[in-house]
Amino acid sequence: METDPRGTAPSRRSRVTRKPARARYRRAAVDAILDEALVVHVGLLRDGAPVVVPTLHARIGDHVYVHGSTASPALRALAAGAPACLTATLLDGIVLARSVAHHSANYRSAVVHGRGEPVTEPAAKLAALERFTERLAPGRWAEARPPTERELRGVAVARIALDEASAKVREGPPGDDEADYALPVWAGVVPVALAPGAPVADPRLAPGVELSAAVRALAGA
Amino acid sequence: METDPRGTAPSRRSRVTRKPARARYRRAAVDAILDEALVVHVGLLRDGAPVVVPTLHARIGDHVYVHGSTASPALRALAAGAPACLTATLLDGIVLARSVAHHSANYRSAVVHGRGEPVTEPAAKLAALERFTERLAPGRWAEARPPTERELRGVAVARIALDEASAKVREGPPGDDEADYALPVWAGVVPVALAPGAPVADPRLAPGVELSAAVRALAGA
Repeated sequence: METDPRGTAPSRRSRVTRKPARARYRRAAVDAILDEALVVHVGLLRDGAPVVVPTLHARIGDHVYVHGSTASPALRALAAGAPACLTATLLDGIVLARSVAHHSANYRSAVVHGRGEPVTEPAAKLAALERFTERLAPGRWAEARPPTERELRGVAVARIALDEASAKVREGPPGDDEADYALPVWAGVVPVALAPGAPVADPRLAPGVELSAAVRALAGA
Repeated sequence: METDPRGTAPSRRSRVTRKPARARYRRAAVDAILDEALVVHVGLLRDGAPVVVPTLHARIGDHVYVHGSTASPALRALAAGAPACLTATLLDGIVLARSVAHHSANYRSAVVHGRGEPVTEPAAKLAALERFTERLAPGRWAEARPPTERELRGVAVARIALDEASAKVREGPPGDDEADYALPVWAGVVPVALAPGAPVADPRLAPGVELSAAVRALAGA
């Protein structure tokens, strides 16, 4: 019976070694971070050295999916089964301590270790594209022109299983040295979050086209 | 004489291969992204597989600095000269095209390839800590208690030279297929940016301590 509500690491390399109290191993914690992040960073090897590239992503069930051009070196490597690490990070706040040494950031991050695998079956690729689109703007899939068979063939999709995933969370006020709490220095957190601005219409928008429901919802407009 | 205002790649592996029109090789472009991003993702090798971890950073001149506990495996590896890739990504907008296939994101990313090197000289470590603190909240260095010699010894600092760095930028409206511009589908960009919220005071704040100037400026309060 698992008694730690934070769960246990699914593998040695997914165990958080620094600040283990911040670790979260339950899949729900990993999923929530992957599902909120709009961008992830994927690490791969190239000529023996690491390469880290940002990309859009989508989680479907027990896998996290990425997509790109069939000519993308990163997609080709993932589809060929390369070892990869996919990390999503949400910055939640700037942590202002009384001492310089305890300044920090509040964040939630999810790290997935695994090998890429190709997604080639057209129905599976279409399902992934739907999820990518819906993640950018819920409801958008029904508004935009669906992909043609040719477009679908031109998109490479790969996925990584969530078998070896962990999350790490820092939250709450600064942790100052006991003696410093008496200092007359303001301490606390300034929250930060990604916020949408007013939609900017394409200059080539067809005459009379109004903001759609999905875009209004995305922009909070 | 260099005629392309976007510059040329400083090395083969820092050349952008996908969507080369989005590449920016001038150091000013790389510096601006590193200086605006609050978090970067560092890729390292562990047991032959890539590992990607988020971290705070600061650029000073021709190097980007990271810091952490002297017990951090990532800091130890960087200080030992491990090959690394440090990537900063700023998400600027959700790009809503008329067709599903052309949905995208506007972003600016900087990728630095290199080997870590240790920063051990106390004055250099102190200068780096000042920059880390000032990046989180300009003016904060003068408000908070300075690090003691013991605290300084407990912090590991490493840096990577900006010799092999490149930037990649997607901006502007969607790029739809010519035939799709006539579709009655709203298209354009919803800008996004990291926005501060109202400061949350530490519950243990000493009585009578008011918000400081640096925190007010950070929060726009």
